[in-house]
Amino acid sequence: MPKSQTKKATAPQPRVRVLMGELTAMGPGRADLIDAIARTGSISAAGREMNMSYRRAWTLVETTNASFIEPLVITSTGGSGGGGAQVTDFGRGVVERYRAMERKAAKAIASDFAVFSKLLSTTPPPAAKTAKAATKTTRK
Amino acid sequence: MPKSQTKKATAPQPRVRVLMGELTAMGPGRADLIDAIARTGSISAAGREMNMSYRRAWTLVETTNASFIEPLVITSTGGSGGGGAQVTDFGRGVVERYRAMERKAAKAIASDFAVFSKLLSTTPPPAAKTAKAATKTTRK
Repeated sequence: MPKSQTKKATAPQPRVRVLMGELTAMGPGRADLIDAIARTGSISAAGREMNMSYRRAWTLVETTNASFIEPLVITSTGGSGGGGAQVTDFGRGVVERYRAMERKAAKAIASDFAVFSKLLSTTPPPAAKTAKAATKTTRK
Repeated sequence: MPKSQTKKATAPQPRVRVLMGELTAMGPGRADLIDAIARTGSISAAGREMNMSYRRAWTLVETTNASFIEPLVITSTGGSGGGGAQVTDFGRGVVERYRAMERKAAKAIASDFAVFSKLLSTTPPPAAKTAKAATKTTRK
């Protein structure tokens, strides 16, 4: 298993997202999804690996394709196997460039980030707790 | 108006998020919200500036406070003014460190990003289109 796939819930890490205005064009989740599609040849299998519904995985592929000048993933229908999904050379290139940018950015801020990490709580807040808390406050 | 607040829907930009596992501890939106609270002395006024509901702004403040070893924002109730919100010295320090990391990361990947930007479509996908498209595809 590659290092990037080990799960440490509390390990702080800097990540880079490429935004177009408010929309993410490429981020860590999309890069992982495209790698999984390249490995499995299937959007649904890649989605399952990432604990994502097929619909969610498919929508991510669609929006990512539409964010670039060429498709990153193409799908084929029919045949006895029922079709499949392929990552294009363009898609592989985009993910490679993205990962290179993330590595460079992480390296550039490594020492700052080590200091910053000491300010982070080791117990991240459960989402449920904060939603509940929000209902009982008064307007300030 | 500072440069970071001008809105260009299609302008690609690299941003850095600090994640704790899957959760964002600090990102561009949270940093802007904390700056707005420091300026306005109020969570609701800061939320309004950012086109955010009071509930959303309050929840972001809560989860951000819980992500760090000390609160970034404190609130006071009562008094004829009805209370308010203040950014702590710790909170100012966190935002400053975060912005410094974002600047360094952006600088480190500036030339890669210029190349990457050329691969981005100039018309980002409308969310509605992709949701609709997702319903009419077949499982691959």
